[in-house]
Amino acid sequence: MVLTNEIDATQPTVSPSDFDLQAFLRAGKAEVEAALDRSLPMAYPEKIYESMRYSLLAGGKRLRPLLCLATCEMMGGTREAAMPTACALEMVHTMSLIHDDLPAMDDDDYRRGRLTNHKVYGDDVAILAGDGLLAYAFEYIAKETQGVSADRLLDVVQCLGHAVGAAGLVGGQIVDLESEGKTDVPIETLNFIHNHKTAALLEACVVSGGTLAGASDDDAARLTRYARNIGLAFQIIDDILDITASSEELGKTAGKDVAAQKTTYPSLLGLEESKRRATALIEEAKAELEPYGQRADSLKAIADFIGSRNH
Amino acid sequence: MVLTNEIDATQPTVSPSDFDLQAFLRAGKAEVEAALDRSLPMAYPEKIYESMRYSLLAGGKRLRPLLCLATCEMMGGTREAAMPTACALEMVHTMSLIHDDLPAMDDDDYRRGRLTNHKVYGDDVAILAGDGLLAYAFEYIAKETQGVSADRLLDVVQCLGHAVGAAGLVGGQIVDLESEGKTDVPIETLNFIHNHKTAALLEACVVSGGTLAGASDDDAARLTRYARNIGLAFQIIDDILDITASSEELGKTAGKDVAAQKTTYPSLLGLEESKRRATALIEEAKAELEPYGQRADSLKAIADFIGSRNH
Repeated sequence: MVLTNEIDATQPTVSPSDFDLQAFLRAGKAEVEAALDRSLPMAYPEKIYESMRYSLLAGGKRLRPLLCLATCEMMGGTREAAMPTACALEMVHTMSLIHDDLPAMDDDDYRRGRLTNHKVYGDDVAILAGDGLLAYAFEYIAKETQGVSADRLLDVVQCLGHAVGAAGLVGGQIVDLESEGKTDVPIETLNFIHNHKTAALLEACVVSGGTLAGASDDDAARLTRYARNIGLAFQIIDDILDITASSEELGKTAGKDVAAQKTTYPSLLGLEESKRRATALIEEAKAELEPYGQRADSLKAIADFIGSRNH
Repeated sequence: MVLTNEIDATQPTVSPSDFDLQAFLRAGKAEVEAALDRSLPMAYPEKIYESMRYSLLAGGKRLRPLLCLATCEMMGGTREAAMPTACALEMVHTMSLIHDDLPAMDDDDYRRGRLTNHKVYGDDVAILAGDGLLAYAFEYIAKETQGVSADRLLDVVQCLGHAVGAAGLVGGQIVDLESEGKTDVPIETLNFIHNHKTAALLEACVVSGGTLAGASDDDAARLTRYARNIGLAFQIIDDILDITASSEELGKTAGKDVAAQKTTYPSLLGLEESKRRATALIEEAKAELEPYGQRADSLKAIADFIGSRNH
């Protein structure tokens, strides 16, 4: 099974200037994975740490930590200051995947090409591993961040909690569950689901990166618009890939949405219009970053990456 | 079904001085429940808020918030400053009960005399309600606390995260799960389970109350010893009540430990020795508070309450 971070060469990429996206993603992913590995060393009781590490270190694009690091740097902060928050964002994301895969939820056996957490450790351990990662995310930000004022860190804690709770990710998942099996889900509901289930955490990655660097309210508003656009594009492309990509490419079961008669962007808008809309959202996202010039290269490149990803 | 907070009149109570424990507990519980009700107003999507509120507002002794409030006041802080953290501690406790009751975990149908969360809302919603409460607890401390420095609040966030994660509650639950069905669990393992599954959060209640009020390291060490003693006593008495109290009194299934051949303090030490040990722990806890004189009346009374509770 091949799970690379290569951009699909058949798609148009509009990388800005001379920025080397591949090198940026590769180096960033390696740096984040080393930090994640250090963030959660083995301890007694081993089984829970093994289970948490199994999913936290299972690969993936590490898009959320990279968004946080890149935004913090763009706004004049350091990677070091943002790394604990970047790791915490990935812990929270991992929690949501572990719980989402449970038999009581989406009942998925595979994730990123490997058995899901509960298939390896059991449902009980998987529930606790998610709880442990969620609690540790907040502890880790408070304990490990250096060179950022306590005021800003509290803002980050609040932002992360909001993005994960009923006003964010959990709220999106509930509406998603309620919409299952319904064939008449309106686009407003679909937008709500994705704005909360996916985009809220992506937004928290970008906004917290800005907060750590002391971004102004104006900058924060720009960052929020950038994040919402890439967040929605991300989800539209997820829906498209569920139709066009193979399970092998995705590392998880493909075609699940169609099989479940799930309302998706392609089912509501058609495949071509969905692609057009995703591309427009990516362009709008990048336009928000114009005031930052070359310092925005990495965030623009991440937007292009989201627009052109094939798994 | 009668679920009161009355102390069993057949047990010896050693309330200090003229402190009116009943009035303190009754007033404190009412105040905390009003604050909890305000902390989580209904919103869209209603189902997740209903589910979270169903368990958060299901009664109980509210011992954890009261410990936080009483400690903060004893150390010179205000109730107002401690109330958001007190509510957050109850949110975290509620999360642990919701997840613990799931079929994949302890599979309990009743809690506090009512159907458990997943019996009313389904396993999927119950998992998400727990996640939502856990995330909101941290957001709520950061967002709502007034008159406490950001430095202290970050310490509280760290303390709470540590108490809930794999180094605390979640770690205790894992070892508890691993010990199920084993008849040769040593007392060291039993102590580990309870020190983490129950005592860690009780300790966080007390220590965070002290932190909010700016307690010194010496005070924090005393508070920690007080909390560990009442935490272990709490669990020993839980084990005793599982044998001696009825399901009606407990509001949950009684006799489960014996039925599951679970190793408990009474099964290891006998009923009388377990009672003796619980009493000794309560006395040691109160002795730690001697330097604070009458200001410690409420915390001493809570210790007595734990030592004499009958459900």
